[in-house]
Amino acid sequence: MLESQLILDTVRNFSKNKIEPLSEKIDREDWYPRNLVREMGSIGILNPLYQGLDLYTAMLILEEIAKVSGSVALIQDAQTELVTEPIRKFSKVDVNALSSGEKIGSFGLSEPCCGSDTSSMKTKAVKKNEWIITGEKMWITQGLYADLYLVAAKVDNKINAFLVNRDPCISVSKIEVMGNRGTGTAHVKFEECKGEHIGGWEVIKYALNIGRVAISAISIGLAEGAIEEALEWGNSRIVFGKKVLEHQGNLWKVSDSISKILMLKSFLKYVCENMNDYLISSLKLQSSRISQEIVDQSLQIMGGMGYAKGSKIERIYRDIRLTRIGEGSDEVQLHIISKNINKIF
Amino acid sequence: MLESQLILDTVRNFSKNKIEPLSEKIDREDWYPRNLVREMGSIGILNPLYQGLDLYTAMLILEEIAKVSGSVALIQDAQTELVTEPIRKFSKVDVNALSSGEKIGSFGLSEPCCGSDTSSMKTKAVKKNEWIITGEKMWITQGLYADLYLVAAKVDNKINAFLVNRDPCISVSKIEVMGNRGTGTAHVKFEECKGEHIGGWEVIKYALNIGRVAISAISIGLAEGAIEEALEWGNSRIVFGKKVLEHQGNLWKVSDSISKILMLKSFLKYVCENMNDYLISSLKLQSSRISQEIVDQSLQIMGGMGYAKGSKIERIYRDIRLTRIGEGSDEVQLHIISKNINKIF
Amino acid sequence: MLESQLILDTVRNFSKNKIEPLSEKIDREDWYPRNLVREMGSIGILNPLYQGLDLYTAMLILEEIAKVSGSVALIQDAQTELVTEPIRKFSKVDVNALSSGEKIGSFGLSEPCCGSDTSSMKTKAVKKNEWIITGEKMWITQGLYADLYLVAAKVDNKINAFLVNRDPCISVSKIEVMGNRGTGTAHVKFEECKGEHIGGWEVIKYALNIGRVAISAISIGLAEGAIEEALEWGNSRIVFGKKVLEHQGNLWKVSDSISKILMLKSFLKYVCENMNDYLISSLKLQSSRISQEIVDQSLQIMGGMGYAKGSKIERIYRDIRLTRIGEGSDEVQLHIISKNINKIF
Amino acid sequence: MLESQLILDTVRNFSKNKIEPLSEKIDREDWYPRNLVREMGSIGILNPLYQGLDLYTAMLILEEIAKVSGSVALIQDAQTELVTEPIRKFSKVDVNALSSGEKIGSFGLSEPCCGSDTSSMKTKAVKKNEWIITGEKMWITQGLYADLYLVAAKVDNKINAFLVNRDPCISVSKIEVMGNRGTGTAHVKFEECKGEHIGGWEVIKYALNIGRVAISAISIGLAEGAIEEALEWGNSRIVFGKKVLEHQGNLWKVSDSISKILMLKSFLKYVCENMNDYLISSLKLQSSRISQEIVDQSLQIMGGMGYAKGSKIERIYRDIRLTRIGEGSDEVQLHIISKNINKIF
Repeated sequence: MLESQLILDTVRNFSKNKIEPLSEKIDREDWYPRNLVREMGSIGILNPLYQGLDLYTAMLILEEIAKVSGSVALIQDAQTELVTEPIRKFSKVDVNALSSGEKIGSFGLSEPCCGSDTSSMKTKAVKKNEWIITGEKMWITQGLYADLYLVAAKVDNKINAFLVNRDPCISVSKIEVMGNRGTGTAHVKFEECKGEHIGGWEVIKYALNIGRVAISAISIGLAEGAIEEALEWGNSRIVFGKKVLEHQGNLWKVSDSISKILMLKSFLKYVCENMNDYLISSLKLQSSRISQEIVDQSLQIMGGMGYAKGSKIERIYRDIRLTRIGEGSDEVQLHIISKNINKIF
Repeated sequence: MLESQLILDTVRNFSKNKIEPLSEKIDREDWYPRNLVREMGSIGILNPLYQGLDLYTAMLILEEIAKVSGSVALIQDAQTELVTEPIRKFSKVDVNALSSGEKIGSFGLSEPCCGSDTSSMKTKAVKKNEWIITGEKMWITQGLYADLYLVAAKVDNKINAFLVNRDPCISVSKIEVMGNRGTGTAHVKFEECKGEHIGGWEVIKYALNIGRVAISAISIGLAEGAIEEALEWGNSRIVFGKKVLEHQGNLWKVSDSISKILMLKSFLKYVCENMNDYLISSLKLQSSRISQEIVDQSLQIMGGMGYAKGSKIERIYRDIRLTRIGEGSDEVQLHIISKNINKIF
Repeated sequence: MLESQLILDTVRNFSKNKIEPLSEKIDREDWYPRNLVREMGSIGILNPLYQGLDLYTAMLILEEIAKVSGSVALIQDAQTELVTEPIRKFSKVDVNALSSGEKIGSFGLSEPCCGSDTSSMKTKAVKKNEWIITGEKMWITQGLYADLYLVAAKVDNKINAFLVNRDPCISVSKIEVMGNRGTGTAHVKFEECKGEHIGGWEVIKYALNIGRVAISAISIGLAEGAIEEALEWGNSRIVFGKKVLEHQGNLWKVSDSISKILMLKSFLKYVCENMNDYLISSLKLQSSRISQEIVDQSLQIMGGMGYAKGSKIERIYRDIRLTRIGEGSDEVQLHIISKNINKIF
Repeated sequence: MLESQLILDTVRNFSKNKIEPLSEKIDREDWYPRNLVREMGSIGILNPLYQGLDLYTAMLILEEIAKVSGSVALIQDAQTELVTEPIRKFSKVDVNALSSGEKIGSFGLSEPCCGSDTSSMKTKAVKKNEWIITGEKMWITQGLYADLYLVAAKVDNKINAFLVNRDPCISVSKIEVMGNRGTGTAHVKFEECKGEHIGGWEVIKYALNIGRVAISAISIGLAEGAIEEALEWGNSRIVFGKKVLEHQGNLWKVSDSISKILMLKSFLKYVCENMNDYLISSLKLQSSRISQEIVDQSLQIMGGMGYAKGSKIERIYRDIRLTRIGEGSDEVQLHIISKNINKIF
């Protein structure tokens, strides 16, 4: 078992030296960093839980990556929390090729019809000699490049999880998005594809749960990245005779943002140690919303420079907006919390 | 050492049976519940830290009390966190009479001149045969009734802490306030009073630090009390053909409030376990502000009933507003955080 | 026809000299200023529209009154917009005794069952030799003291408006509220009372419409009163070596509040000149909510002093909260706007 | 003189038929629609004030354009409010080539050193035989393509306005930005360029004032465009068994946004009719901030679709962010308001 601090130092160095230099290219060219995924695999950050790290440490890894690239953090999440880890936990399928980054995995839940409304899912699995999967999935991270898909499909109206390998039965088309670019987001169609049954709703639920915590960690990391940039700018740029952050009106806003980051980080830790539906939804809801505010505030500190291409914060501003939509929108989280009120109060 | 769960159950029962029946009288008549303080002493909640409880459990006690009465919670805070505990920690003065509720203690820091701006403090202590204290203190909880005062006073421009017993040298006048009534808030004048030296700035700082966490816990408890009332109303009252909380627009607001409470409670726990200046200020800033929003939202759910005297939430609405002012306003917390940015980022 | 500027100067003087000296007594003692109503009548501000003033000028009058007393503004509104003006417009009943303040009038719409949900109204009118009214009304401003009531009652499931004179068939009981005190808020029961038919739903609708604009004007006046006090304090009080408003963090907040007041005042003017359902609801929704934020912000500028009884802002803080509930809550306004979207977009 | 309604209908048709089809290309390819500027000139919307339209109607034109393209609206603003109109008003220079779109004009105020802080401006004008201008300007809309520049430069420490024609003394470099793309934003250097003196600070001030109102109108138009798209989506897309906008939680948010638009539009009208510094700054501050919230809310209604390239709202989300930075940031507006408080209260 690796020590948390050690792995975090490793991740921090890796982020600085290997990820950050690619961040702008990934965003600007909508470029999927295929080789970087293998490098992440080689230093062991594509399956931290399997290596014996606790969930909180796994999330700190994501937070570190998100500080330098929301896209790479989302790739790690799609590969690890949404695919590798659920397969490892609920099946005997070998996940080494996923952990090493040799193979790319995608999680297929959302559909064109109905987004976060999984009850209306149309993808079906039918048992003949083998399981046969037919349906469409949308907003699939890494969907363009995946070697295998963990797909949610209905069997007699109940959602089950299947593994489908890349095959001519699958057609993919690119969806270009505002932020978190270079992640291979796709519309994926399965036409009578053979699939391996991994388990029932519990597999999807597990992926969603850690996936939502992962998005929360990413949102916090993005906000921290934004604050770092605002601090650097605000402590050097002179306006109206003083540094930007010597103007109290600005300083108080940054201080408020920082206090919110501390709050969110403590909430992330607490939820990792006390996982349940309503805590996860509460974390997802609050961290993505508050992080978006922090990023917006940080951009404002930088003025025109924050609006220009090439500034890190311009990219973060687009990246952060996904976190209130992906893995269950704000509204889905509110719905889940509302169903659990009597367990809380 | 008491078990946390055991003492919390005790506090919950005590709050329900002994405090809640007095809450309205305390508020309406601005009535100080002198005997209740003795009862709190008798069940051991006027000095939880001394009894071996950790700070977090001590704060959960306050949270429980605040759910039924912000005033009684503030009395506990003034007596315990601001007076008994600093004296116990920094001196050999016997605190049994404070712990039992036999004696009432007040903490004197703010002054008419300058509120939270302690650097401008005017109260002075001069060493003759004994220490002689002269000055004025304002917004002093329990100040009207205190048997002894823990007073901040300057010695050669440095703030020190002194114990001053009730004596004709002291004159008190009542300050009537919007909420947290019945707590004996006073303007207190010391004219050449003998004082006992307890220590330097570290005593005041210690009181402020745990006092700020205490106000945070109180704010959370008040918000929880408000949500409880809104849930009860919203799950029984029918409007436009459905229960108030069957209207999704209302339900989502309550769900959002509940998710914020979960976040604040985790932050409270984290700060209690990792006390430092900027974490304390961040907690105070965010918990009081967010709790105020929650209370406001909860009142809105109740409509006219929430605005009427006699509803618990009408009182909570006035009580919660103090938490952004007392023990260092929002602005003071922002100032503290801003001084610590380079330790955080 | 009076000139707008002339009457506004008169109102300003009257407010300063006659209303403001009573404001604290009205609030603290929950004291209804019966004689002041006659004085308002004598200077002609209990029926401005009848005197040929336009609605906007009438609203500016309310705004001026609200700057010094939310309670007196609410009394004017209850007497004038909700009773005198609808009677004058829709009937031949002589309103001179109302305009002069000789008689007190109340508008009875809300009921204990159902607040703003008028479709569930239970009060009924039956035509025998005369119209006979039976039912209960709640949250009735001036209800304790009214000489006559303009009552909404159902005739065969349609809401109609009736005039009911004070009579032993009416029983009233006081409802004590957080703010806008001294306005005689009551629960009023009508048991087989004779009523005079004034008209159908259009009477009630007219009262509601100008009443909602009136609450908007009151909310703006209250916010202006709060800013005035915050400016006075902030420009004299010294903290941390400077005036409160020389700290940029504070100054920017006040400046933001002031810009919002300018926006709300322009919206009030526009709506008065272009009255329709969705504009009225939009004004009510935004002005009451934004004004509440302004008051909260202004109180924060004043710190402890803003929380103490005797400061004008402490009273305004309680008064302003009604404006998001009375005359149709935020939620009712959102409902009305939502029904009109296709007229707007 | 054209009739307002007539020209607005013309603009609406033109926007629908000529601008909207180019909107995506302009944004995606960062493509400056040179010919479209001539077409705008030919229908008379590059100098509405000169044609006798009032400022409010001129702003309604901008609002209409912004509904379909923030970039084209910004081009109109840069050409018209910032250049053509100030030149026309303060000089005898012929503006026909600007009004017709034959020539492109740019306004040069901000500098690399100091953004909105004009007091630190470094560009200088020296009188020899002719006026000679030297300095750098940044964030200059149309700067890449301009035939002439209205440039702010210091003469003996006082800011004056000069006209500089395109010449080899000028070097331009492109600045790529997040939104409002295709507007030719540039960094422009003047090295000993001949300039024609147009006037003093009043010229710059006039451009800034109508330019700030213009940005406000653009922000409102962008928000309206976002609401339109959210309504279309929300009234057709089914989730959880109902249309998106049949879910009350969503419907109330849209209704709230719509009520804010009504408020902002009335404020815009009022300010156009009562131009002064603090009203302009208040309008700019509130309209850009509130419009950004509305756009954010509208995007959320659309979920993943709002985050995808090709949706109009994805572009608006990036465009709207400029409005809180350009033509004086939020902070500059707060500063201006704060300097005028004693004129308002």
